Parts: sequence; C-alpha cells; structure tokens
Amino acid sequence: MLSFTCDYNEGAHPLILERLVAVNLQQEPGYGADGFTASAKARIREACGCPSAEVFLLTGGTQTNSTVIATMLRDYQGVVAATTGHIAVHEAGAVEYTGHKVLTLPSRQGKMCAADLSAFLEGFYADGSFDHMVFPGMVYISFPTEYGTLYSREELSAIYAVCGQYQLPLFVDGARLGYGLTSPACDITLPELAQLCDVFTIGGTKVGALCGEAVVFPSGKAPEHFFTMVKQHGALLAKGRLTGIQFDVLFTDGLYFKIAQNAIDRAMELKALFVSKGYDLFLDSPTNQQFVLLDAAAMARLEGKVAYEVWEKRPDGRSVVRFATSWATTPEQIETLAKLL
Amino acid sequence: MLSFTCDYNEGAHPLILERLVAVNLQQEPGYGADGFTASAKARIREACGCPSAEVFLLTGGTQTNSTVIATMLRDYQGVVAATTGHIAVHEAGAVEYTGHKVLTLPSRQGKMCAADLSAFLEGFYADGSFDHMVFPGMVYISFPTEYGTLYSREELSAIYAVCGQYQLPLFVDGARLGYGLTSPACDITLPELAQLCDVFTIGGTKVGALCGEAVVFPSGKAPEHFFTMVKQHGALLAKGRLTGIQFDVLFTDGLYFKIAQNAIDRAMELKALFVSKGYDLFLDSPTNQQFVLLDAAAMARLEGKVAYEVWEKRPDGRSVVRFATSWATTPEQIETLAKLL
Amino acid sequence: MLSFTCDYNEGAHPLILERLVAVNLQQEPGYGADGFTASAKARIREACGCPSAEVFLLTGGTQTNSTVIATMLRDYQGVVAATTGHIAVHEAGAVEYTGHKVLTLPSRQGKMCAADLSAFLEGFYADGSFDHMVFPGMVYISFPTEYGTLYSREELSAIYAVCGQYQLPLFVDGARLGYGLTSPACDITLPELAQLCDVFTIGGTKVGALCGEAVVFPSGKAPEHFFTMVKQHGALLAKGRLTGIQFDVLFTDGLYFKIAQNAIDRAMELKALFVSKGYDLFLDSPTNQQFVLLDAAAMARLEGKVAYEVWEKRPDGRSVVRFATSWATTPEQIETLAKLL
Amino acid sequence: MLSFTCDYNEGAHPLILERLVAVNLQQEPGYGADGFTASAKARIREACGCPSAEVFLLTGGTQTNSTVIATMLRDYQGVVAATTGHIAVHEAGAVEYTGHKVLTLPSRQGKMCAADLSAFLEGFYADGSFDHMVFPGMVYISFPTEYGTLYSREELSAIYAVCGQYQLPLFVDGARLGYGLTSPACDITLPELAQLCDVFTIGGTKVGALCGEAVVFPSGKAPEHFFTMVKQHGALLAKGRLTGIQFDVLFTDGLYFKIAQNAIDRAMELKALFVSKGYDLFLDSPTNQQFVLLDAAAMARLEGKVAYEVWEKRPDGRSVVRFATSWATTPEQIETLAKLL
Repeated sequence: MLSFTCDYNEGAHPLILERLVAVNLQQEPGYGADGFTASAKARIREACGCPSAEVFLLTGGTQTNSTVIATMLRDYQGVVAATTGHIAVHEAGAVEYTGHKVLTLPSRQGKMCAADLSAFLEGFYADGSFDHMVFPGMVYISFPTEYGTLYSREELSAIYAVCGQYQLPLFVDGARLGYGLTSPACDITLPELAQLCDVFTIGGTKVGALCGEAVVFPSGKAPEHFFTMVKQHGALLAKGRLTGIQFDVLFTDGLYFKIAQNAIDRAMELKALFVSKGYDLFLDSPTNQQFVLLDAAAMARLEGKVAYEVWEKRPDGRSVVRFATSWATTPEQIETLAKLL
Repeated sequence: MLSFTCDYNEGAHPLILERLVAVNLQQEPGYGADGFTASAKARIREACGCPSAEVFLLTGGTQTNSTVIATMLRDYQGVVAATTGHIAVHEAGAVEYTGHKVLTLPSRQGKMCAADLSAFLEGFYADGSFDHMVFPGMVYISFPTEYGTLYSREELSAIYAVCGQYQLPLFVDGARLGYGLTSPACDITLPELAQLCDVFTIGGTKVGALCGEAVVFPSGKAPEHFFTMVKQHGALLAKGRLTGIQFDVLFTDGLYFKIAQNAIDRAMELKALFVSKGYDLFLDSPTNQQFVLLDAAAMARLEGKVAYEVWEKRPDGRSVVRFATSWATTPEQIETLAKLL
Repeated sequence: MLSFTCDYNEGAHPLILERLVAVNLQQEPGYGADGFTASAKARIREACGCPSAEVFLLTGGTQTNSTVIATMLRDYQGVVAATTGHIAVHEAGAVEYTGHKVLTLPSRQGKMCAADLSAFLEGFYADGSFDHMVFPGMVYISFPTEYGTLYSREELSAIYAVCGQYQLPLFVDGARLGYGLTSPACDITLPELAQLCDVFTIGGTKVGALCGEAVVFPSGKAPEHFFTMVKQHGALLAKGRLTGIQFDVLFTDGLYFKIAQNAIDRAMELKALFVSKGYDLFLDSPTNQQFVLLDAAAMARLEGKVAYEVWEKRPDGRSVVRFATSWATTPEQIETLAKLL
Repeated sequence: MLSFTCDYNEGAHPLILERLVAVNLQQEPGYGADGFTASAKARIREACGCPSAEVFLLTGGTQTNSTVIATMLRDYQGVVAATTGHIAVHEAGAVEYTGHKVLTLPSRQGKMCAADLSAFLEGFYADGSFDHMVFPGMVYISFPTEYGTLYSREELSAIYAVCGQYQLPLFVDGARLGYGLTSPACDITLPELAQLCDVFTIGGTKVGALCGEAVVFPSGKAPEHFFTMVKQHGALLAKGRLTGIQFDVLFTDGLYFKIAQNAIDRAMELKALFVSKGYDLFLDSPTNQQFVLLDAAAMARLEGKVAYEVWEKRPDGRSVVRFATSWATTPEQIETLAKLL
C-alpha cells in the first residue's frame, strides 16, 4: 500500500547509507568527539552563516525540544507556545515532565501571532498577582508549523522583536526545517532565520536521516554544561558518529535542501491534483504537509490502496486528512494517487 | 592510532548495514509499529524463551536506564545499586533528574552482594524512622558490571531471592549483555537470565549496532502505558525501523552471540598477552573489558600508537587502565598491540 | 484601613488560640502522631460521616493541591481543571513542577461543566494519537470556585458520574469549603460531598485557622505511603500539634460551620449593599467572595479607606474587583463600608 | 510520661503565644507582606549584622532545605553533604524529588571535613569523564549536626575556603542554630556565621516556635524570583503573619538565644548526670542532643517513665540513644530523670 501518512516512512537518503558503509570500521571516539561530528558541525555553522554558533546533534524531536526547553528555563518559568504547538499536544507532556508549564496562545492556522504574544506578556506583568504565576521564560514556534504553514520574515521579525522587548529567548522547532526553507512561499533563508531567533533545530529525521536533530545556538550561547544535561536527558548517543555522519552528508553540497525540494515539488503536485479533482483544502499549506477534506466516498476509493492520516472528523461528514510528502516521494507515487482519486 | 578505548569506536556489523540498505525504501509506519520491529521483538522473545515477554526498543543506555527506573518506581521509592553502578556514577544524575534517589551498596569488584542487599533491606525496615526515608523500590545490577565482572548463577539467584522476599523488582542492565553471556566464565544462558529478573536490557550500541537497547519484561509486566512514558522521556524514535532492523538482524541466526564471541576471544588473547608480558591485572575480568596496571614506561611506549582509557592513578605511580575489545576487534589488532608492549 | 482583600487578613479564631495556650506545655510526639491530631481526625471523619476515611493535615493550599495531585497521578497522566482553576493559574506551576500537565477545560463562571468534561474525554480516546498525549488522570474542581460559585448537587453528581465512567478520581479543592457548605445556595452537606468525590480538602487557613488544610480520602484509599510523600513534598510539620489542635477545635461543636456562617451572612449583607447602591455585580456569587464592578469615581471614594482586590480592568473603564468576607468580618465593618460607598 | 525524644514535643514559647493573641484581629496583607514579617526580617538582619541580607520565612526544615537547594542548583548540579546529613537520610528524598543528587562525603561525628571536601572536588575535576557525572553545585552542612556536634570557626572557615576556591555556595542548615550558637563549645557568633557561608537557616520549629525556618542570604543574593519558587514548592504561607510574628518575638530582646541557652544548660546537666552515673557517652556532644549508650537494664528502668529515641542497636547489646533537651526543658525534669537512672 502506498503511504502518505508521514515523512518518516522510509529509511535514509542513499548517500547517507553509502557513507555509513564507507567509514564503518574507521575508529572514532564516542559521545560526539568523532571527526564526522566535527565536520558536520562546521558545515552547519557555514550553512547558517554563523561562524561562532554552537551546534549539538541529538536524536529525536520530542527529546530535543524537552532538552532545549528544560535547560534554557529557570524553575519559575514556562514556555509560551501556540495551542497547536507540538510541545503542547503531541509530546506526552515531556516538557511538563521536566517541571515546566507550557503557556498557550491562540493558534492562527498553526502559527502564533506577535500581537497575541505581546498582549499576553503585557497582561502578565500588569496582573498584580504575577509572582504567584508561571513566568513566561521563552517562546516556542515551529517552522513549518504542525499545519504546514510558514511564518513570513515580517511575522517572524515581529515575534522576535516582542521576545527582545521582554528578554525572552525565541526557540524555533525546525523538525521539518528543510521543507519550510525550500517552499516557494518562504521568504527567508537559513542564515536569516539564524538571525531571527536564539536557538533553532534542523530536523534530520523527517528530512532524509535515519534519526537526528541538530540544535543550533546561532550566537554560541548554549546553556552552560549543555553536554552534561543532554546526557542527563538520555539524549547523548555513545556512537555520536551516527548523527555526525548523517548531518555531515546532509550538509555536503546542499543535499539537505535538494532533497527537501523534492518533497516540496511533490507536495505542490499533490495539492494541484486535489484541487483539480475538486477536493477542498482544509488550509492552503505551502510545505510538504497537505491538508485536504475527504468525504466518505473518497475515503472508500482509497481504502486499502493509499494510506494517509486522519486529523479530525467534521460534522458535515467529511474528514480533515493529511497527506505528507518527503525527500523519498516519487513523481510515480503522485501519479498512482492521481489515478485513484 | 589503534584504539581499545571502548566498544563503540566503530560503526555497525556489516550485516546490519546491508539490511538497512536493502529495505531502505520500503515504506513502514513510524514509532515502532513497523514490521522490522515486530520481527525483532519476536526473535528476542524467542531467544529469551519468553513467549509472553514485552519488548521495547530504545536508543541509548542512560536513556533506557532512567526510563525503566523512573517508570517502575513510585514517588517515594529509590533504586538500589552498587556504588560503582553506572546509574550511580556516569549517567549525569539522570535517575535523580526523574525524582528518584540511587541508594548505594558496597561494590565488590563492581558487583552487589546478596548479603549486603539483605542486610540493607533488613536494616531499613528495622529503623524506626524509615517512613522519613527513601524506600528501596527496585534493585539495579549490571551484567557484566562496569568492571567487566559477572554474577554467577548462584550469586544472581541469591540476589533475586532477596528481591523476592521484599517484593522488589530486579533490573539487569545488559548494556554489554552479549559480552557477558558469551564469556567462558558465564554459567547462565539468556533464557535463564530472563527467569532471574523482572526486567533486563539487551545492549545493541556496544554489541554491533549503531544504537539501540532492547528492554525486555520477561513476564510481560511492563508498566502501564510504557509507550507513552518512553515518548515522554524523549526515547521514542519516529523511525522505529532503525532499531527494529538492527535487532532483527542481530537476533537472526544468533549473530548477536557470534559477534560477542569475537570480542571475548580477543579479550582473552589480550589478557594473556598482558600477563605473559609481566603486567599486573587490576582484576581478573572474564569479559571484553580488561583492567591492567601500566607504569609510566609502558604508557610512554604506547603513547601516540595505542589508545586506551585511564581509570585511576595510583600512589605507586602506576595507572589502572581499561582496554576494551568489541565485535570489531581483529586478531591483527591484538598482534599489533603485542609488538608494542 | 479596612480590608476586604481576602479571607486571610486576620489571625485565628480565638478558641483556637485559647486551646494553643492551654495545652502548650503538654508533651506530644511529632509528625502528626500527637493526640490532638488523632482527635481532629476522628472529629473530621465523624463530620464527614466516613468512619473509614483517611485524613491528613497539611499546611497550605498550593502545597496540598500539588501533593495530592502528584501522588495520585501516574507519570503519563495530567489533571483536568477549568482554565480558571487555582492550580492552572495561581500556584506558580506547582503541579507542573512535579512533572504533570494541567489539562484545561472551559470555565463557566469558575466551574467545569460535566458535558465539557465528557466531550473532552470522549475526544481524547477517539484521537488516534492519544498515546502521544498526556492522559487525563484525575479531575480537579474547587468548591467554592475561584469566583465564589458553587456546584449544585446535580452538577457535582454529573461530573462524578463522568469521572466514574472513565475511572478518574475526582478531587475537590475545599480551600474555602466552609464558605461553600454554609451558603444559602448550597444544596449538599459535608457527608454528601464526601460521597461525591474521591478526595477533598477542608480549608483551615481561610476559615479561621492560622494555617492548615485537611486532606480527606473518604473511602480510605490514600496513595500508598502518603505520609512519606507528604514529607518529600516538604508538607510535614514536625509539630503536627499545630494543625492537630486547630482542626480539633474547628470540628468541636460545629465551630467550623458557625464561623463560616458569619462570613456568608456578612457577604450577603455586602452584596445587598452594593446592589442597593446601584453597583453592578460581575457575577452573582453565593459565597464569601463578592465580585463587583467599580468605576473610577467609586474607586476614588474608597481610596485609602477600604482595601479590596482588583481582578481585571475593563474596556469601559470599570474594574472587576473582589470583596471577601471571612469568619472575622463584623457587621460594623460592613456598616463602615456602607457609609463610604 | 516524661519525654526527651526530641526538641519539638511542646508548643511555643509563651511570649509567642501572647503576641499571637494580642495582634490576632489586626488586619494584615497575606503572603509575607505583613508588618510583623517586615519587622522580623529587620530584626534578623540586625542580629546577623547583615543590613543587606535577604530573609525569607518558610515553614519546616525539609521544605526549607529542598527549596533552597533546588533553587540554587542548576540542572547538572548536585549538593555535597556528609553521609549523615539530614538531606541525605531523613528527608524522604526531597532533594532528589526536585531532580538533584546528594553527593556524599564521609561523616566525622556528623561533620564534613574540609580535607575530604577538597579531595573530592579535586578528584572530580581530575576525572576525565566528569562531564558524564553530576557536578558538585553547592555544599550543605548542618550546624549543629545531626549528632549534636559543632564546627569550630577554624573548621568552618576551612570548608568555606574550599567552597570559595571552586565557587560553590555554602549552605548551613541551622534547624537547631540557637542550640549551636549558645553552646559553651561554640567559638563563633551569628554575625560571624553569616560571613562564613552564602545562605543559612535559623530554625524556629525546634527553638521555641510552633513552626518556621528563616532563610538568610547574608549578601542579599537570593535566587531570582525566590518568592515564586517558594510558592511553587508549596512553602508559602497565606498567613505569613504566623511566621512573621514568631520570628519577630524570637528576635526581640534576644529571646531566641535566651531560650536556646536553657536547652544547653539542661543538656549539660543531663550529660553530667549520665557521666556521674557511669553511663558511656556515644560521643561528647556540646549541644542539646546527647547520645548515650544504654544497656538493657537501664532501658528497663526507664520503660514507661521516660521516652527517648533509639538510634542504633550495637552488637554488645547496648543501644545508642538520644536524649534531647529544648527551650522548654525544666530543671525539675532533669531531676526526675536523675532519680530514675
């Protein structure tokens, strides 16, 4: 059965596997002190245009989010996120498990809006009892969001300006960063993003790696002893080479962006396909996650042939469903789907 | 430079890489619901002789230990370990980070002794103020230990009997399990081990995998909603296939034991080599970690040519050092070392 | 300056102080093993009509809430509360500090509604990805609520029925319980309340004690080793006699209810006063917290003479303010206010 | 039955109760913003000779210790204590519950020794794998210790010097501070103590108060937003006046020291009594806790007439027992004991 359920249905980009095989018996030290990791970090710093950035390679998304958030917050602080933010919903309370509240703001098609953030922060400090409450300690957004949407440069700058006003670090969760940056709707580059936040991640798991998320502190201001806390969070690989090799390959000759571009191209074909067949979009996503409304007849036609994710059942009988493309999606797969719709 | 610093200096056993390549584009669901993981679990259950065992595949050792311990303890409980236990020393306080104390007992060449455990538990409940103290809630041992030593069947049975008397689950950390079970000094089998504890791990990272630890609840009594708590601990891979494929290969045709045997064979050669050259052993390890006393002259001879780990400097000027072999160590590497000593 | 800012502006009911003085030099064991505490617990059990209830005396409200919630939840669970619930807003993230999320439902004048709760729980389990989310593990309501409102017997029964359907314990925060049970609008008694929840608190701090909250498990099902966890949470007094004596006095000859009745009588006078003077009520509270809308002129008249709490500034220039009465409020104080309005 | 089991068998010094009664109906704001608390803090600052000290009033010992320690440590740090330190043994794992390890050093009659501390810290940073371990983040000692012993000025200075060398704050748990400072063996004053540590507590519960521990940051460097974290730890009293009034009275006209002196006088009489009757001391305590060896015959003589605490049964059949005096112990009680021995 053909699957569009997510962007982690396949293994890794073949160049990654080739490299894993090629250097397999080369002896390297553990815990990220290997040469591959050093090279990967250097390439990431270069791609970000941040020569003094500190880069760490972790394994998975939830792990990375909770490690970054817990280590950047003080005990009396929580993290501000949109109600639809991944950390607020689908991470099994990993942030709260580390002792911190997720403070939620309205979600505008998956996005936080600078005006909402500003109003929240102003209201917080205007409340006479704020010292009995959880202090906002950082701001979390995802790029692209859980609904595939993107912040424009203007929107992101506005959020970052509010953060600056209240001295709150801005954390950009880039689990699907490649699919955001290569979208035709994206008006910022990776180096520009690095200037508009205090810490961000470059997702590997969903963009061609077997596993791995790079955490980038663009100005080099990682929390003190971050390495030890990564270990404490169970996020330190003994064979750091595994993530080192992968990010090294992904950031050689722009592979990360090339393979992300494939997902975007396929996603745009997929969206055009649905529209041309008369399906309603749930929202107009510019990235690799496409949200469509399917009725029972359509779902019956795809039954057993094409897999996708159902997000919500609507009173009108239709369902909001997600079709995700990835670095591995082929034009042939889109064509197969076209025939079935 | 030739390295004996640890058993995670190389990548993965070639058969694992072959399989990763072969099935790379096969679409599978995420989060461990893939067919490879299902197959791996079945093979592990079979190898353990536990048809009703529950098996989970996590990524790394510290992560696995803290997840298992935190989810099996109640808030008022701590975990009992030898002072040299990995969780007590080298996991950056990961257990305490989850809110639980590590209660330590004397280490007898890395091992906990049933008599010490029994005395501790008896003393605890005899203390009139025990309800102001951390209750012992489970017992942790490593097999092999951090010093390469092994529990005999009799020793392990004795510990398990004490645990049973106080209804404490016994957790066996098998980060190097293969290197224990294939040691000539080992008098228990994997199915026997599975009968002598409540939960144990089968280490992949140090025995031929890129990453991965299998958690086995032999009687099928995993903590309720363990899956969700694995996610909460940041220990759930989106591409569960990565650990699934690796353990599936490792437990096909006894590969796990075959490659572990190589490490043991090389370790015995290495030990014989040191002894024949007149070096003193720090202790007589029957597994892949060998502890030797090197003086300054010997260390100078190896300088820049052979890497190993220094554990301790002694007043007599000699150092306790560790040489580790692995699935990847070759007879040629031992011969090279022989020429340098 | 006359203060209506809260119900903890004064010390303790004189009978409590008398008793503290009378038994001051009587030697008693510590940590709640004293005779006063035993007597207090017996009286509370009797007042609740629950001979097998387990009763614990803690010190403060936030402390009690976080201790009860943390010890009753499993790691993968959170607590469901209204958005205005005290634990969700004004406890400095104490629940999250113990590792648990507060899952919020709409607040209907401070109350949770059974239909919202039912819809939330049904939706949770209908969501295919619920095992990536925080499980609802208990339900928290306050009685009276933070807005002074009360659940009717029917409303409370409906919530408890939903809890029963999903096997979730119901926790009733009774920080102001006396002021709820003695309200003319209240249609349940203390023994009835005890039948409609799994754990509740009887607030002392706000109802005549210097400090102290009684935690009641009506069916005697306190979490195992609750005593030890109370200590772990820093909630165990060495001189348990302090809370023991206070609750013993409060539950002798119905003192708790008599002094709560005074607060209600004064609150009803205060409400009538505001209405008669033409002030708008923010909501019609039947308990000791009254919420009124004051304009700038009214606030100027009271300036420096009467203290109250400002909750919210409204676009129309008026403010939502709270006037609280207590066991200590006198008719003379209400008259003084009347002259100033 | 006459009790010497502890120093919290009675209520409060009568002057405290008098004052509680006298100001009972005076309206004051909550949460420590009352005038009594302000006065108490001023008096404490004066008694400590630290005009810029920050002072906070909490309720109990375990609560205070875990709040101070958790808020002063970073996630990667633990607290160093003697193996017999209260936080290491009798606080139900409260420190670990907040996520931090207690790192233990040998206990020398209850005391930590500067040389042990120095060796531990030197060894920690000399260990090549220290970044996989819990960093020492602060040092905890108790004054007097759990065995009634005292640090001399020289010993304390030596410890503080080592702390300074490694930039570790020194925390002195003064749950029984009065009984230390008024001991004839004590060679430091309260202002001198305040110069030899970074934070200390002044115990009220055991020295004449119903409850209450004052936390003093002599240089005014409390953790940022300590108030909010006190609330988060459930350690903030709504009626802050309760601790405010008590410490205000205790630090008026040196009451704290006068009543502590009584305990010391009685303790010296008690020690002399045991020695004169031929009993062996377990150790020679200069403070209000006296440790004596009792044989079965002696214990039989006291049975049902005098209560004390048994600490340890010895192989020779004798028991180490503790007799504690307090502010409330009378010369008559010592005489009664004398007749029974």
